[in-house]
Amino acid sequence: MQPMSRMRGLLLTDDGPRLQHDLAVPTPGPGEALVRVRLAGICATDLELAAGYKGGYRGILGHEFVGEVVAAPDAPEWVGERVVGEINIGCGECALCRQGLGKHCRRRQSLGIIGRDGALADYLTLPVANLHRVPDTVGDDQAVFVEPLAAALQVAEQVHFAPGMRVVVVGDGRLGLLISQVLALTGCDLTTVGRHPDKLALLDARQAGRTILSGDPALDGPVDADVVVEATGSPGGFAASRRLVRPGGTLVLKSTFAGGLPEFDASGLVVDEITLVGSRCGPFVPALRCLAQGRVQVTPLIQARFGLDEAVAALTEAGRRGVLKVVVAP
Amino acid sequence: MQPMSRMRGLLLTDDGPRLQHDLAVPTPGPGEALVRVRLAGICATDLELAAGYKGGYRGILGHEFVGEVVAAPDAPEWVGERVVGEINIGCGECALCRQGLGKHCRRRQSLGIIGRDGALADYLTLPVANLHRVPDTVGDDQAVFVEPLAAALQVAEQVHFAPGMRVVVVGDGRLGLLISQVLALTGCDLTTVGRHPDKLALLDARQAGRTILSGDPALDGPVDADVVVEATGSPGGFAASRRLVRPGGTLVLKSTFAGGLPEFDASGLVVDEITLVGSRCGPFVPALRCLAQGRVQVTPLIQARFGLDEAVAALTEAGRRGVLKVVVAP
Repeated sequence: MQPMSRMRGLLLTDDGPRLQHDLAVPTPGPGEALVRVRLAGICATDLELAAGYKGGYRGILGHEFVGEVVAAPDAPEWVGERVVGEINIGCGECALCRQGLGKHCRRRQSLGIIGRDGALADYLTLPVANLHRVPDTVGDDQAVFVEPLAAALQVAEQVHFAPGMRVVVVGDGRLGLLISQVLALTGCDLTTVGRHPDKLALLDARQAGRTILSGDPALDGPVDADVVVEATGSPGGFAASRRLVRPGGTLVLKSTFAGGLPEFDASGLVVDEITLVGSRCGPFVPALRCLAQGRVQVTPLIQARFGLDEAVAALTEAGRRGVLKVVVAP
Repeated sequence: MQPMSRMRGLLLTDDGPRLQHDLAVPTPGPGEALVRVRLAGICATDLELAAGYKGGYRGILGHEFVGEVVAAPDAPEWVGERVVGEINIGCGECALCRQGLGKHCRRRQSLGIIGRDGALADYLTLPVANLHRVPDTVGDDQAVFVEPLAAALQVAEQVHFAPGMRVVVVGDGRLGLLISQVLALTGCDLTTVGRHPDKLALLDARQAGRTILSGDPALDGPVDADVVVEATGSPGGFAASRRLVRPGGTLVLKSTFAGGLPEFDASGLVVDEITLVGSRCGPFVPALRCLAQGRVQVTPLIQARFGLDEAVAALTEAGRRGVLKVVVAP
């Protein structure tokens, strides 16, 4: 299929997100591929960007996608491949990039987040080095979860989950449900704390550990979990997570906090020897492997589908309290 | 030597610290030893307790000591031994104690800090299980540093310092100088940031890494240390430490923050994937080993000596800005 010269895209402007119909199809630069988007997902970061809570990004939103390579001048063997793509593009030259920390490069672009148009569009470009082929056994509805699943797996990249550990995940949103499924694979003693019985039921159906509603009296006493993963991004979720972790234990922060943590007690961390681990993007290869092997079930998280022409409505739907994954098919 | 029935002690009262001459010599309980204090050290925690910044402790201050066992009804083989003692006494029964986390027991006593009279006295009691014999080659002036040196070693218990790592210690106080000496042993690329040329000179004399004054322009650019150890306990020290650590790196908090960290940016930890490690008391056995093997030099840190009768003046001296270790000999 030959790309058209004009395309649609959900553009974040000074006046908020606007669907545009007459955007130029981007031209792949050296080492880059032009990708036709097959399916894109909306994530909390998109909502924060659109609401102006985060950064000053202006451009096409979206960083979760599965697509098809339609042009790759420097790597024509990629044309026709169904792919997902890592979202960060380091400068390749600085000390961080040379240490393999390109995702933290201070001059990085991030697809749909910093300096590079994103996936809520007909087409996007990414370096071929960022792309991963999707196995035929992994459908688009699964592949669109590779980026958030990689972020969930990043928790296990950073922290060793031993089978004998008591682990609590706080949050039953999109990310929390992925994290709990991933951590259940380690054999640890896992509990997920949430507010929505219907979402927790998705974990129960997977036998992915124990689930419990926040406010349950069982959470009042000392729970003393070895590791707690905070996946709510709210000060209340942080406070609950902090109470649940044992002295000497680890608390993983998986979400940013729009308003900060005004009551954060640094001295308490020292006295109780807590380790706090900030965690963001993760590895795509094991995410694809988990999906190909059926270790994690993602499609039940899709709650609504929109066409690209309805992308503004899709964003609104994704922002409604309690809604899980909203996907957009160009 | 037989203990007397009355003794002196620096008692923290509602009206502040007072030297008392007519305190009862404590009676060792089951499994405990009565220890005659040979030398005690004053630490920042004592100053915070005395100033009312921390907890509501009332009793004899002091937790750094070397002494001699004068009675141990259940373990008479200890009588006459020169000892140092671990300061935390767990209940021995709770889930934390059963996991070997007795130093974090919620019902713990801590010598001179929580529920148990401390070392700024003629005598103290501790469980025999808390005691460690001091080798003859380690003098009292060295042994009195075992507790703070153990706290310094705790950093290496919690974080792996690989020889290729770039490490920065922020703070040239009592604890910072011990931490830098300990970390220099790992072969890492170590820099200590401080405010006092005379203190940093103690590290230079040991060839314990590079030293640099805070405010030096070399600290302005991205330093991107793999690990930074915060040993100032001030919000400014924390902010400096946070700036020095690379994305994906580790920031160790070694001091409590009396006024909290009002500008703490939790979201920045997530985006930059920083690991924050709270660190407190450490292992006595390697501390004694380091001293016996001459790996760490502690006696130059002693800046003033007082008798127990001058304990209030000793506390005042230890609180003067920039003063390193003050010791008290009964």
